[in-house]
Amino acid sequence: MKVFQNKVEVILDALPYIRKFQGAVAVVKYGGSAMIDPELKREVARDVALLHYIGMKPVVVHGGGKEINNWLARLGKKAEFAPNGLRVTDKDTMEIAEMVLGRIGKEIVELLQHHGEAKSVSLSGKDAGLLQAEKMRSEYDLGYVGEVTAVNTDIISNLLEDGYIPVISSVALGADGQTYNVNADTAACKIAKELEAAKLYLMTDVDGILDKNKKLIHRINRKEAEVLIEQGIISGGMIPKIKSALEVLSIGVQSVHIINGTLEHSLLLETLTSAGVGTMATWD
Amino acid sequence: MKVFQNKVEVILDALPYIRKFQGAVAVVKYGGSAMIDPELKREVARDVALLHYIGMKPVVVHGGGKEINNWLARLGKKAEFAPNGLRVTDKDTMEIAEMVLGRIGKEIVELLQHHGEAKSVSLSGKDAGLLQAEKMRSEYDLGYVGEVTAVNTDIISNLLEDGYIPVISSVALGADGQTYNVNADTAACKIAKELEAAKLYLMTDVDGILDKNKKLIHRINRKEAEVLIEQGIISGGMIPKIKSALEVLSIGVQSVHIINGTLEHSLLLETLTSAGVGTMATWD
Amino acid sequence: MKVFQNKVEVILDALPYIRKFQGAVAVVKYGGSAMIDPELKREVARDVALLHYIGMKPVVVHGGGKEINNWLARLGKKAEFAPNGLRVTDKDTMEIAEMVLGRIGKEIVELLQHHGEAKSVSLSGKDAGLLQAEKMRSEYDLGYVGEVTAVNTDIISNLLEDGYIPVISSVALGADGQTYNVNADTAACKIAKELEAAKLYLMTDVDGILDKNKKLIHRINRKEAEVLIEQGIISGGMIPKIKSALEVLSIGVQSVHIINGTLEHSLLLETLTSAGVGTMATWD
Amino acid sequence: MKVFQNKVEVILDALPYIRKFQGAVAVVKYGGSAMIDPELKREVARDVALLHYIGMKPVVVHGGGKEINNWLARLGKKAEFAPNGLRVTDKDTMEIAEMVLGRIGKEIVELLQHHGEAKSVSLSGKDAGLLQAEKMRSEYDLGYVGEVTAVNTDIISNLLEDGYIPVISSVALGADGQTYNVNADTAACKIAKELEAAKLYLMTDVDGILDKNKKLIHRINRKEAEVLIEQGIISGGMIPKIKSALEVLSIGVQSVHIINGTLEHSLLLETLTSAGVGTMATWD
Amino acid sequence: MKVFQNKVEVILDALPYIRKFQGAVAVVKYGGSAMIDPELKREVARDVALLHYIGMKPVVVHGGGKEINNWLARLGKKAEFAPNGLRVTDKDTMEIAEMVLGRIGKEIVELLQHHGEAKSVSLSGKDAGLLQAEKMRSEYDLGYVGEVTAVNTDIISNLLEDGYIPVISSVALGADGQTYNVNADTAACKIAKELEAAKLYLMTDVDGILDKNKKLIHRINRKEAEVLIEQGIISGGMIPKIKSALEVLSIGVQSVHIINGTLEHSLLLETLTSAGVGTMATWD
Amino acid sequence: MKVFQNKVEVILDALPYIRKFQGAVAVVKYGGSAMIDPELKREVARDVALLHYIGMKPVVVHGGGKEINNWLARLGKKAEFAPNGLRVTDKDTMEIAEMVLGRIGKEIVELLQHHGEAKSVSLSGKDAGLLQAEKMRSEYDLGYVGEVTAVNTDIISNLLEDGYIPVISSVALGADGQTYNVNADTAACKIAKELEAAKLYLMTDVDGILDKNKKLIHRINRKEAEVLIEQGIISGGMIPKIKSALEVLSIGVQSVHIINGTLEHSLLLETLTSAGVGTMATWD
Repeated sequence: MKVFQNKVEVILDALPYIRKFQGAVAVVKYGGSAMIDPELKREVARDVALLHYIGMKPVVVHGGGKEINNWLARLGKKAEFAPNGLRVTDKDTMEIAEMVLGRIGKEIVELLQHHGEAKSVSLSGKDAGLLQAEKMRSEYDLGYVGEVTAVNTDIISNLLEDGYIPVISSVALGADGQTYNVNADTAACKIAKELEAAKLYLMTDVDGILDKNKKLIHRINRKEAEVLIEQGIISGGMIPKIKSALEVLSIGVQSVHIINGTLEHSLLLETLTSAGVGTMATWD
Repeated sequence: MKVFQNKVEVILDALPYIRKFQGAVAVVKYGGSAMIDPELKREVARDVALLHYIGMKPVVVHGGGKEINNWLARLGKKAEFAPNGLRVTDKDTMEIAEMVLGRIGKEIVELLQHHGEAKSVSLSGKDAGLLQAEKMRSEYDLGYVGEVTAVNTDIISNLLEDGYIPVISSVALGADGQTYNVNADTAACKIAKELEAAKLYLMTDVDGILDKNKKLIHRINRKEAEVLIEQGIISGGMIPKIKSALEVLSIGVQSVHIINGTLEHSLLLETLTSAGVGTMATWD
Repeated sequence: MKVFQNKVEVILDALPYIRKFQGAVAVVKYGGSAMIDPELKREVARDVALLHYIGMKPVVVHGGGKEINNWLARLGKKAEFAPNGLRVTDKDTMEIAEMVLGRIGKEIVELLQHHGEAKSVSLSGKDAGLLQAEKMRSEYDLGYVGEVTAVNTDIISNLLEDGYIPVISSVALGADGQTYNVNADTAACKIAKELEAAKLYLMTDVDGILDKNKKLIHRINRKEAEVLIEQGIISGGMIPKIKSALEVLSIGVQSVHIINGTLEHSLLLETLTSAGVGTMATWD
Repeated sequence: MKVFQNKVEVILDALPYIRKFQGAVAVVKYGGSAMIDPELKREVARDVALLHYIGMKPVVVHGGGKEINNWLARLGKKAEFAPNGLRVTDKDTMEIAEMVLGRIGKEIVELLQHHGEAKSVSLSGKDAGLLQAEKMRSEYDLGYVGEVTAVNTDIISNLLEDGYIPVISSVALGADGQTYNVNADTAACKIAKELEAAKLYLMTDVDGILDKNKKLIHRINRKEAEVLIEQGIISGGMIPKIKSALEVLSIGVQSVHIINGTLEHSLLLETLTSAGVGTMATWD
Repeated sequence: MKVFQNKVEVILDALPYIRKFQGAVAVVKYGGSAMIDPELKREVARDVALLHYIGMKPVVVHGGGKEINNWLARLGKKAEFAPNGLRVTDKDTMEIAEMVLGRIGKEIVELLQHHGEAKSVSLSGKDAGLLQAEKMRSEYDLGYVGEVTAVNTDIISNLLEDGYIPVISSVALGADGQTYNVNADTAACKIAKELEAAKLYLMTDVDGILDKNKKLIHRINRKEAEVLIEQGIISGGMIPKIKSALEVLSIGVQSVHIINGTLEHSLLLETLTSAGVGTMATWD
Repeated sequence: MKVFQNKVEVILDALPYIRKFQGAVAVVKYGGSAMIDPELKREVARDVALLHYIGMKPVVVHGGGKEINNWLARLGKKAEFAPNGLRVTDKDTMEIAEMVLGRIGKEIVELLQHHGEAKSVSLSGKDAGLLQAEKMRSEYDLGYVGEVTAVNTDIISNLLEDGYIPVISSVALGADGQTYNVNADTAACKIAKELEAAKLYLMTDVDGILDKNKKLIHRINRKEAEVLIEQGIISGGMIPKIKSALEVLSIGVQSVHIINGTLEHSLLLETLTSAGVGTMATWD
């Protein structure tokens, strides 16, 4: 009887979420180690496919991570850096990056489609005018690094309505006709905002936001997060992530989730259990 | 990590069923001890409400059980029996039974509505021409005991479409304008058949069909059940239940489930776990 | 030729009303002697079925009248009265009342369905959250006598849209989970108001409102009625009926009709002839 | 009370017809004295408007009667006759006839629209390819007298759906690009057949079909009519009318009514009373 | 290659207009010599049919031109004139005019339908309450000459939606029940305004508006036209046409085109070439 | 006037095609020199955008042409050949080809979107299960060269319905989870067949099919083409193109057009002029 009771409890815990998120758009920024380890790749794809399967509408946004570097190395491209230490993306590098990002998108599609019913389509921000960019304003000329200036999510909405899982790479088209590389976190945030997605997941290599005792914070609101930043408890690379998340929240997205891509099924557990496994940030 | 993994497993086990039964009509014959014990009453109602909540379309069919006897006693009606030992239902008894069954229906409605979103409506088979009956053919005159001759489930379909949980009591109208009491198991079967319900649950006080070693059979098909009846392994009151179930299966209902109403959450566990807790009978 | 001319005149007189009330919701408070005399019962049911037949959408609201008393007597329940002379409804009485009201509803359904096409469904105010009540505030504790606090007519609208004649008994559910008996006139008024019914018929045992010369007033507006009440010309039990009617009118119901249930076809004549046979109260 | 009862009887008699003919298409061949007498013109228009008003879909088909002759005389056109005594319609005559028929149509529109809600549109058979004709085959050249060869009632269906009363004059277009005058009775029959109209009314100056004792036959079927023709009891101009009617019946129109246009409200009485005032011909 | 290039240029020039005017309502005031010359009649009809064919929704409005005079002469009607030189339309003249206009409408229908797919329907302003008029206010009694007081274009919208080309003659019904002749230019303007037609074409016998050097002005706006009128460069019969056009523009019609009906395909060229062949008047 | 007349002729010539192909799906196999020359690239994109603009539904299918070779060279990949002279595509080459094809698709999208209204989306055959392949059966192991085994054009239909121009690269997914390069001509034919496209354009570097006198054949049917192949008049690389075209025709595509991508606006001229500029192959 005990085992039944446990099952019932887990199910009773999950049911309200399954119900609540029927038809909810969920943007998943896919990144970190989960893009490298083959087993993790499969796990993440499986979780995304399951979210789709139970009636949510996931949208995957991805960058290129280390794979772009691999190809640049193979092509003998020498990395060029601005005086401030940031990498310069010349036209040739941009072209290579675009190709690599395209291939990564197709690979994610393959993995998603591997799980039966889900049909998936990978696009770049150049398709259907999805992401528009302009050259990033910076002290030094960083070449074809862009900032997203406009988002037109019609194509995503159309694909979601037709039952597909859209997979978007962080490439955008400039008004100058040039192709720009944009930050994938920012792109994911802007897309989530424009779609009025119910949820935005930012996949990282850490469990979420930790408090001063290094314990995971399961739920945080805007003000609490701002205090933690001021106190220096949130620091480093987490700061821009949290800031983007808070900005998105202030518009319409109900929750942003910082999850650990290296933790198996973190996406599913964060979505379907009341405790969750990462940090959920909400407006209040 | 272990606890996460267990949760994930239960969820992954339940998801396909939740998905599969989206919009599926499920007829629940409510009866036995679960109609008497106040705690069990609430549990069953909660499970039915949960099935509704996750997107299924439950229909409850009930008889009156012991409560009719209580009122007859209170009114000083002396039970009359035919020579074959069957109770005779005279007109006055029928009128009392109809009133009691009506009140039981309203009580089920109350319990179902207690769980938030679910809206429920209780009817008798006389409403909207739902159940038509004729006097049961029998050696002795049993009075107003009827056999269902026709089922018009339009009102159930309409209520389901409008999002209500219909609760039906086992009273039918005769072509002769008389009111008849009909067997609730039979009524549930006929309604399930007519609705082409995906599932029919027959709630009993036992765990399901047992094999010759008294172990629960989780899954059985038509032929296997017939063999067990021939061999006398299925016996007693279970025989007519199984026979009705098999007949329903032969028409269109995908599965009939014999479940134990005294086992907490048996309805939910039978529906959302791969192992199940009762006996699921299918065509092949 | 003369006979033709008469027929044409009656038809020409009726046509505009038939046309005008296509699809109009009409709440009929069924009560008085018409609930006791078997012939009158059939006549009223026939008229309601005819209103349905020509395209109106009738809703019947009923109380239990003398039949509740009969059953209480049979069960040996002794009537208990508060010091102010009002009857006290204890829990047991309420349960009996609910059962009797349920059975009366089914009988009305039978009579309505007796006329071919009409399909009817009887509900209590507990179904689908239709009527919510709280204990009536009173000097003395009257037990389970309630006042309607909220009306949710979704189920009525759904049934009307699906082509059924809803029949509603004056039982409501309290926020305290208790069942309350509510006044059927008030319930009918509140339902008519919520449904924005075009018409509300209050069936009584008198022809309508009489003027100071005891002649029937065919048409009266709000101000005229108020004057008659002030002058004492409307008096006794008619006062609360008229007051309820006026309150309903002030919201959206176009006309309230006081009709004599003992006058054959009063419902039909009041609806389809320009003169009418009762009193029609309108806003101006 | 007596007067009420009479009213109720007439209304109860009319209700089933009003109900039954909701949305039913009724083709009215308008002709005879009712096209000349100004009072009768108004009466017929009023009846057609009332049929529309209670939910039927009337279509009026008319010829030109004596008015064409008046204009021919005024223009000094001398009537020309073929050796078999039939009038020859030369091109000039046809042009005049077309103009006169057009004006009659507009007058009917005016009268129909005079009764409030009804909106009406008058067309000739040349509009929207409604009536196609070819030169009538005949021993002598009768000029532009045509036989209907094809009917395309799309425009009528469209106008009915949009809530208009179409008024059609008996002019058709030939494949040779010429305009032809066609028989209005035949045109009405063909249009009724093509529209699968529920009813076709042929308006004459007599009460209907009389039996051998000169008494009006209220209802007749195909076989009985054929017998009456054989026996010579139906004779003269009534024969082609009856034959056209029978042919229409054999296809799909449920009843053809021979009514007396000079009898006030004959159209209404024939439609809404069980006895009727003309002769209703049906298939069996 | 040169010939290909020319073709491509013409097509590339026409494509945007074809695209832009998909589904656009275009009112064509048909008049002048193009109503007399048989070849021009056919050409205009062909152009209107082609506009329909490529997806526009043309509406033709016409007067009777010289043909009314011909019939009046044939009937020996002597023209009567008011002291100010305007023709007096007595009742008989009006009846003749109505008949002639009706026949002209049917002829236009014939020509339009001659081109395959187009189905056309001719109406007068009396049909479906399209044009209402009152007696023209004037110093002298001009008889049945009316001014349009109200326009109800429901029937035109319905016919356009059902795919027909409506052809409207300049006859209107007075509130006094009389038939009035109205100016066809004015009627066309009022209909275009009410329909919120994208375009209004006024067909004349001149190329359009000429500047002081007698050169055709291809495009003019409201203010420029007013200046030309003030300067006397637009003069004579063109003044009222231009004034009507400007008034229509001020409401919602995007452009009014003065085109030469005697120039072959002027309608098509004005619509599908960037240069145009007439004068297009717009608001700014 | 002459210039008007010429324009009218060209427009009148084009109109029926514009009309006829409203909503028609047209698959354009883009290839040859038109994929290399920047000016031709822009011209082809402009024509495709124009077809979209006038209401057709173009779908572009492309291979990678010489650009794949350029990248292979740059990466220092040495071409490997099978003994029969065909190139062997190893896994690394396939990965590079996939990336290059992806980038070409994005470039076509850019060019199409450059013309205002058109929104375009580029996919590979791996997206949404569009193209499935298996390893090409061949004497020697050619590596990841595949043959299309199944086509699922749902995603194309969805994109067309939502108003996008789909651009498809000739990459397919195998049941073995491997990525295969497939022939772009074949892919275009299979997609056209599955979509039941009205038209399929095969863009080459020659004007079309030439007869024995080297004159362009504007129109050819299946049998004539087969004769020309037998007679050796169609030869070389044109044979497989023609054979694929004939096979497509035999299923449902109405016409296949062989056009010269180096001839400016060949796509537009072939579609909108009666003479055409290439060879149109039809079933009969």
